[in-house]
Amino acid sequence: MRLSKLFTKTRKEIPADEVAKNARLLIQAGYIYKEMAGVYALLPLGLRVVEKIKSIIREEMNNLGCQELLMTSLQRKELWERTDRWDDKEVDVWFKSKLKNNKEVGFGWSHEEPISEMMRGYLKSYKDLPANVYQFQTKLRNETRAKSGIMRGREFVMKDLYSYSVSEAEHDKFYNSVIDAYLRVFKNVGLGKKTFLTFASGGAFTEFSHEFQTLTEAGEDTIYLDRSKKIAINEEVLRDDVLKKVGLKRSDLEKVRASEVGNIFSFGSVKSEQLNLYFSDKKGQKKPVILGSYGIGVTRLMGVIVECFADDGGIVWPKSVAPAQVHIAALHGGEKESENLYVELQNNNVETIIDDREISPGEKLNDADMLGIPMRVVVSSKSLENGGFEIKKRTEKETKIVNKKELLQMLGNSN
Amino acid sequence: MRLSKLFTKTRKEIPADEVAKNARLLIQAGYIYKEMAGVYALLPLGLRVVEKIKSIIREEMNNLGCQELLMTSLQRKELWERTDRWDDKEVDVWFKSKLKNNKEVGFGWSHEEPISEMMRGYLKSYKDLPANVYQFQTKLRNETRAKSGIMRGREFVMKDLYSYSVSEAEHDKFYNSVIDAYLRVFKNVGLGKKTFLTFASGGAFTEFSHEFQTLTEAGEDTIYLDRSKKIAINEEVLRDDVLKKVGLKRSDLEKVRASEVGNIFSFGSVKSEQLNLYFSDKKGQKKPVILGSYGIGVTRLMGVIVECFADDGGIVWPKSVAPAQVHIAALHGGEKESENLYVELQNNNVETIIDDREISPGEKLNDADMLGIPMRVVVSSKSLENGGFEIKKRTEKETKIVNKKELLQMLGNSN
Repeated sequence: MRLSKLFTKTRKEIPADEVAKNARLLIQAGYIYKEMAGVYALLPLGLRVVEKIKSIIREEMNNLGCQELLMTSLQRKELWERTDRWDDKEVDVWFKSKLKNNKEVGFGWSHEEPISEMMRGYLKSYKDLPANVYQFQTKLRNETRAKSGIMRGREFVMKDLYSYSVSEAEHDKFYNSVIDAYLRVFKNVGLGKKTFLTFASGGAFTEFSHEFQTLTEAGEDTIYLDRSKKIAINEEVLRDDVLKKVGLKRSDLEKVRASEVGNIFSFGSVKSEQLNLYFSDKKGQKKPVILGSYGIGVTRLMGVIVECFADDGGIVWPKSVAPAQVHIAALHGGEKESENLYVELQNNNVETIIDDREISPGEKLNDADMLGIPMRVVVSSKSLENGGFEIKKRTEKETKIVNKKELLQMLGNSN
Repeated sequence: MRLSKLFTKTRKEIPADEVAKNARLLIQAGYIYKEMAGVYALLPLGLRVVEKIKSIIREEMNNLGCQELLMTSLQRKELWERTDRWDDKEVDVWFKSKLKNNKEVGFGWSHEEPISEMMRGYLKSYKDLPANVYQFQTKLRNETRAKSGIMRGREFVMKDLYSYSVSEAEHDKFYNSVIDAYLRVFKNVGLGKKTFLTFASGGAFTEFSHEFQTLTEAGEDTIYLDRSKKIAINEEVLRDDVLKKVGLKRSDLEKVRASEVGNIFSFGSVKSEQLNLYFSDKKGQKKPVILGSYGIGVTRLMGVIVECFADDGGIVWPKSVAPAQVHIAALHGGEKESENLYVELQNNNVETIIDDREISPGEKLNDADMLGIPMRVVVSSKSLENGGFEIKKRTEKETKIVNKKELLQMLGNSN
């Protein structure tokens, strides 16, 4: 990617209407564009990051045998009335509109109801189970306040997974495999050390649900963390009986701010009974399907990653989600060698940004920091005189001169 | 992909509420699910087809140097008022709703206005131009009637591209390169011989726009086609002066039904002036950006492909968009060899479906026809006795026995 061709540009001024650090930095670096509060377009660099996060999640989902599909945004009123989730008094984030014939429609803020209704047509017998389906969906939620940047949007991308099992035992096994898969996702996007499995309220359906909470001051949740056990408990269920049950001691807990990047939930048979989702078991008896629901906030994750790693210079991306691995700053006298390196890296399938614009060296180095690509390579007459390419990791201050062979070796091993 | 694991199933009964052939066949084969009229979810096989179509388009767009992004569904009223396209009297397909503070919002049925407003922040100087950006967006349109299946949806996927040029000359050059790229897209999805560049009305902005019309009885348009020149003219501009201008003779024209799978449009400077989108030229003078807009109906294309190629047995996919290249029907005595072949093809990166279900041979062969995968391979004790694998192209009636080496060679050369 050539910065001379990329239409987005960095901007020095902090967006005045934006209080969240993640959105400020992402807007300044040209990753996202604010359409209105809580509603952000994904610009080319931002779309790349989101697609990388999606790929990491997709791989884990597919490895669990889950099948990807894509439900619709438009929602039928009748369907949501069955589970008492249509009325604005019950669910206060609906966007609603009307068809030409005056029939009310909603815009999907969640998809348990329509997916389960759709699955009802396919899951008739125990032979059709288990079935586990997921999607990456743009959800619409009419939030009253949307002040956390892309960490809480009115329009945002979510991965939602729904599991349909014949029994509690089959459900529990899958549920636990999702816990492991989610922990791998958060590790793979770079948040492994900061993200903790957290016990939370199970509502009317089950004793607990599980959240995945990432430590950040920008988070909207308060959790109580046992660092040695790597388990946390949400404020809402911080009670002595719960602590005893999950094996935690109040004295070992640390009160911390966190953001919920994923959550998983067992519905038992309650929702299936509401939605008339039954199957015939081996004896021909009618039984309710056991339902689970599992979410990861994809665009929220992008925001949390920014919050967790950014420094005074700008964004710092973990390698796995960075829109490129290398950022070449072509300075005076290094133009030709920069071009050669750019071509060579592309040929080696190393995703590379080259700053080939006619601007000052200071601006180029500033922009490299703002964009947050893991490795910066400065090529100038000075670096060439000193033996090659000046490299610097985005997370470090120290620079180092290496020759091309060393550089290519380093990047080959960097993943 | 194992049909024993895929949750979707084919259904024999024709959906009673569906008049369009494309939707009927896609629903019966389990590619899509009807949420409401004109609103279809993409099931695993359908999502694969759509992703293949998107990849074919994306490649052409990237080769033109276009940059992919993703705008939002939620739309600001003020912005659309500037171009007089907010009022329902002007645009009658808006879905609208309200934020909690009672402010009206719309749901994107097109994105010229928000993209151009966003670009306004980046395109200040002639140095920032040209810029060409595109997206794959789920558009929402409140259609009065939605009876053409996925060929006219209330919710559908569209690729829209917007070009920003310094001059008419620069614009025209890009516009013509998009015509070529679009023709390649339609060729690559299998519709090359049926799709024609068509002169249509340019509205208030330009003399003509161009459509890409695919011949099908299911189409909603009437066009007049000169088969030898491979050019058509839309009914709306069928006038003697127009015929003369584009070099066609009335007597050479054939009246045909067609579906508009793409359209491209020049706005000149009109929309830029409305949206205050100006740049400074080399002399520092303020000039309006020249704007173009280019669309391909992605989900519509899937429907048109079904309409064009389906036969009495079901769907027939061109190789380039098929969800898999090979469909193995494992019949009695051929189970083990089917499994071996399945693994081998997967290892050779040949996308393969295996029908490993415990159902009758007749059902397996019927389902293979309904799903429409380009090559069917029957493996049974009989085929093995006869020397190997019985292959049949979906488009042909004739079967043939080949050994594994021949089969692998054939599939290696089939793309």
